[in-house]
Amino acid sequence: MRSHYCGQLNETLVGHDVTLCGWVHRRRDHGGVIFLDMRDRDGIAQVVVDPDTAEAFANADRARNEYVLRIAGRVRPRPEGTQNPDMPTGMIEVLAHDVDVLNTAATPPFQLDEHGKVGEEVRLTHRYIDLRRPEMIDKLRMRSRISHSVRAFLEGQGFLDIETPILTRATPEGARDYLVPSRTHAGSFFALPQSPQLFKQLLMVSGFDRYYQIAKCFRDEDLRADRQPEFTQIDLEASFVEENDIMDVTESMIRALFKDVLEVELPDFPRMPYAEAMRRYGSDKPDLRIPLELVDVDDLMKDVDFKVFSGPANASDGRVAALKVRGGATLTRKEIDDYTRFVGIYGAKGLAWIKVNERDKGIEGLQSPIVKFMEGVVDALLDRLDAQDGDIIFFGADKTRVVNEAIGALRVKLGEDLDLYTQDWAPLWVVDFPMFEADDNGKLAALHHPFTAPSCSGEALKADPAQALSRAYDMVLNGTELGGGSIRIHDQAMQRAVFEVLGIGEAEAEEKFGFLLDALKYGAPPHGGLAFGLDRLVMLMTGARTIREVIAFPKTQSAACLMTDAPGDVSSEQLKELNIRLRHKAKTETTSE
Amino acid sequence: MRSHYCGQLNETLVGHDVTLCGWVHRRRDHGGVIFLDMRDRDGIAQVVVDPDTAEAFANADRARNEYVLRIAGRVRPRPEGTQNPDMPTGMIEVLAHDVDVLNTAATPPFQLDEHGKVGEEVRLTHRYIDLRRPEMIDKLRMRSRISHSVRAFLEGQGFLDIETPILTRATPEGARDYLVPSRTHAGSFFALPQSPQLFKQLLMVSGFDRYYQIAKCFRDEDLRADRQPEFTQIDLEASFVEENDIMDVTESMIRALFKDVLEVELPDFPRMPYAEAMRRYGSDKPDLRIPLELVDVDDLMKDVDFKVFSGPANASDGRVAALKVRGGATLTRKEIDDYTRFVGIYGAKGLAWIKVNERDKGIEGLQSPIVKFMEGVVDALLDRLDAQDGDIIFFGADKTRVVNEAIGALRVKLGEDLDLYTQDWAPLWVVDFPMFEADDNGKLAALHHPFTAPSCSGEALKADPAQALSRAYDMVLNGTELGGGSIRIHDQAMQRAVFEVLGIGEAEAEEKFGFLLDALKYGAPPHGGLAFGLDRLVMLMTGARTIREVIAFPKTQSAACLMTDAPGDVSSEQLKELNIRLRHKAKTETTSE
Repeated sequence: MRSHYCGQLNETLVGHDVTLCGWVHRRRDHGGVIFLDMRDRDGIAQVVVDPDTAEAFANADRARNEYVLRIAGRVRPRPEGTQNPDMPTGMIEVLAHDVDVLNTAATPPFQLDEHGKVGEEVRLTHRYIDLRRPEMIDKLRMRSRISHSVRAFLEGQGFLDIETPILTRATPEGARDYLVPSRTHAGSFFALPQSPQLFKQLLMVSGFDRYYQIAKCFRDEDLRADRQPEFTQIDLEASFVEENDIMDVTESMIRALFKDVLEVELPDFPRMPYAEAMRRYGSDKPDLRIPLELVDVDDLMKDVDFKVFSGPANASDGRVAALKVRGGATLTRKEIDDYTRFVGIYGAKGLAWIKVNERDKGIEGLQSPIVKFMEGVVDALLDRLDAQDGDIIFFGADKTRVVNEAIGALRVKLGEDLDLYTQDWAPLWVVDFPMFEADDNGKLAALHHPFTAPSCSGEALKADPAQALSRAYDMVLNGTELGGGSIRIHDQAMQRAVFEVLGIGEAEAEEKFGFLLDALKYGAPPHGGLAFGLDRLVMLMTGARTIREVIAFPKTQSAACLMTDAPGDVSSEQLKELNIRLRHKAKTETTSE
Repeated sequence: MRSHYCGQLNETLVGHDVTLCGWVHRRRDHGGVIFLDMRDRDGIAQVVVDPDTAEAFANADRARNEYVLRIAGRVRPRPEGTQNPDMPTGMIEVLAHDVDVLNTAATPPFQLDEHGKVGEEVRLTHRYIDLRRPEMIDKLRMRSRISHSVRAFLEGQGFLDIETPILTRATPEGARDYLVPSRTHAGSFFALPQSPQLFKQLLMVSGFDRYYQIAKCFRDEDLRADRQPEFTQIDLEASFVEENDIMDVTESMIRALFKDVLEVELPDFPRMPYAEAMRRYGSDKPDLRIPLELVDVDDLMKDVDFKVFSGPANASDGRVAALKVRGGATLTRKEIDDYTRFVGIYGAKGLAWIKVNERDKGIEGLQSPIVKFMEGVVDALLDRLDAQDGDIIFFGADKTRVVNEAIGALRVKLGEDLDLYTQDWAPLWVVDFPMFEADDNGKLAALHHPFTAPSCSGEALKADPAQALSRAYDMVLNGTELGGGSIRIHDQAMQRAVFEVLGIGEAEAEEKFGFLLDALKYGAPPHGGLAFGLDRLVMLMTGARTIREVIAFPKTQSAACLMTDAPGDVSSEQLKELNIRLRHKAKTETTSE
């Protein structure tokens, strides 16, 4: 029906007849002539309809915003003075000789230009209109290009695209499963997969050697942190590999992707042990664009006459860390108060600070509510931090976890507020993770998942699980975890050892993972892999602010689709067929029982 | 870890050192030397381990079938007389100098060579072993290539890969939805999509212009006909198109796919109206490889003295059709009896036949239980069918539906049994479908789905819905429907007219499809699309006998996964959180209430 997309028109087409199909983005009457900005997925082109072409003019005259038109006309240069060099098609216009109205449009609930004036709820309810915004089309087009680039790379590396089931068995991987009642097997349930983890391991046991899939995954959890109940992973696994093999191929993939789609050459990815990341950045996904680092000062603070510092400095699970901000002495009292409240979110009970006004004046040259308690160590402290006049030093002193979270977050916030970024893209690998982390009751849980191989023997693992490191690796970019993976356990005895440490008894292991343990018995190759969060990757690459901007039909934070009004009621006949009934009839917003 | 896949070895590598990783496919001791057939996803290579390399020999000696080994050695020609030209690697072998056992293997529940000796249940329970069979690896590898080829084609045509939700709203598209209880919205349910139909239409309303997705779809129905509860569609949609645009691009896609993956040049796709397909082949997915056709003989049979024929010949909903099989007079009485039973499956009450032994002898030259009733028309009949000596003619006489189904199926069965195929691949388009079909109570239902555009006006549709044709098209290959699609309704009034004919009231339409009707109001472009069944396409292209052979982890016919034992029990706490409870506690195989 069309000869060109609107956005394709340019000066090389002057004098040519073109046919455009699209939407009226804007309509203006000017000097007896109608100007239509015609929009399609590729851009906007200006169409002029003058009264000489009576039928075309009459159709253009009744067209309103968002009408669907087909326009035939001739491309001509815009008259001198009306050109718009900021617009790709801004040097030309189309003089229409035919205008067909293919469909009318009621006045939309919001004008595309004015989407900011309505709440996100209105836009999600009318998502099909919101998606007309050129920036939304661009983001989803970029997502399509990203998927395609990733696939092309992995196919080139011999990875096979293999689909794993969506209707599968519940796994106890931490977050909650979505359940699907079975009709054929009354009283039984499928679960939607949180990841294809076990299936991809079984594909390795089968000998597929290199697997990938862009896979839908599901997690029924609270959606506070900009998450979605269904999300997409770039999932891959390979056999007869070690850590470096997986890290090399996926690093190459991401580098190729950035070059292909964004024309960005990513720097080499440094590798940083988890312990170092926590020590220097308070985070296992440090944003290395920010040149601030946490510095340990426990040794200096052990004997100061300030319990807030000396307590954690002497405690085995405590930490005192300093964060120096070059030139930060200009921060106002109010700004410091705001940062104090900010670290409070992470459990910090306060935020001590020292402004270095004139260092060569000794303690007199410092401004700080706490410096009086630490006269004896202040020189050593300033030396260690290489503090100069004009700097500010913040302190965290608490349990190690609290200090890392609070000062780690403060570091990122300062980087953002003061625009301290030294580069656009800062990728890295974090490696040497602990196998397990203890919850508040000291119960161990797998830091990644229970199929991750430890870097020690099974005996060493059982002897001191808290010290055991895993063969896991996370790829981090600009403070976001892009993906994580590991070498997996391919030895049945090791798998049982890990289950034992996790307190999963033989019977439970058999019940939950019997098929995996069986598979390990029949000749499992060494294997490992990685999964990237595609939504988050696209978000980073498109500069989107929420994950909802890079998903065509997202759910709200309460896991609802405002457009289709899902989830919804179903008939009691349907429930009866599934052998279930509701506990409470009323539809409420929360499970308040 | 490896230098080559086993299947990559050939004579050009003689004298080279190689490292292989894989499974022991077979082990033989012969003349004090150990022969290992090493298997990986690319093939099998013969490895020789002799006692001179003591450690390697000891490891090879303890290796059993399905052990995982890493072998380093040198490629050499096989000795004269031991070559195997049927095997890609059959001219060479590897003399091992290192053999590492990477993992042991218990004796598997079945040997790969002997998979035929165990039932499918055993193989599905140990699917990770069944998938080791080279033919299974090849089928899934082919599936990966097919997906990749399709994607490459569609990307090249400007189609954008856009993901649509899996957790969505129940739609009344005929078959049953899988439901997912919502935790956040107690008492409400998501449904898993039977297809992305409405979402792709909304993407057109948004202006994405060309969409595709290789999408998981779900249908909770009885699985008799080699179906799976979850299946995969190649789904696409485009705007500003007519039937020919979609048919052209998808025909090109399938042609490119066959060329790319199978090196097959498909012939041009003829286009056949639905009515013609039913008349000539008794089927809307005729297998055109078979040169048999149904021939209408109603006019000849109206007055014969044989109620079985004259009844249907005179009834408005009856049909008498003949099927001539060249040379079929050699069929035995027993074979004809078997075919009579076969058509009985489709509701035919018998199977009349005439053998043409010596045509020029007139009625004496015919052998038939029924010819005596039709002496007066027999010449005209034989002329119409161009019957020759040695032919057999079968008859169907019943309600049109029964004749079409029974004789249509007989036609396919005869083609198969007598190997009448005239070509390997016979594609076609079936077009001009009726909009609606009546059920036994005369209630109309959409033949495709209620968003299909009719080829007549809304008034004509409402005036005589039974006569209305749709703008739908099905692609058929070798008697299998590969895909189906249509031009959709983009006009709200037309959509309401179709709902009206279907007996969907305004309130029900608003409740179920309000968002679609809304979307049509705000400027919907003309659009249409098509969806291919990927599983069935792969099945055809790989020559698989069941759909389960081209799915990595299929469900059984009772929708269970024998490997993971899904669906399974869940805890009452989980159900409580979802605000549901079981009606009956016991786990039974059927919903027998």
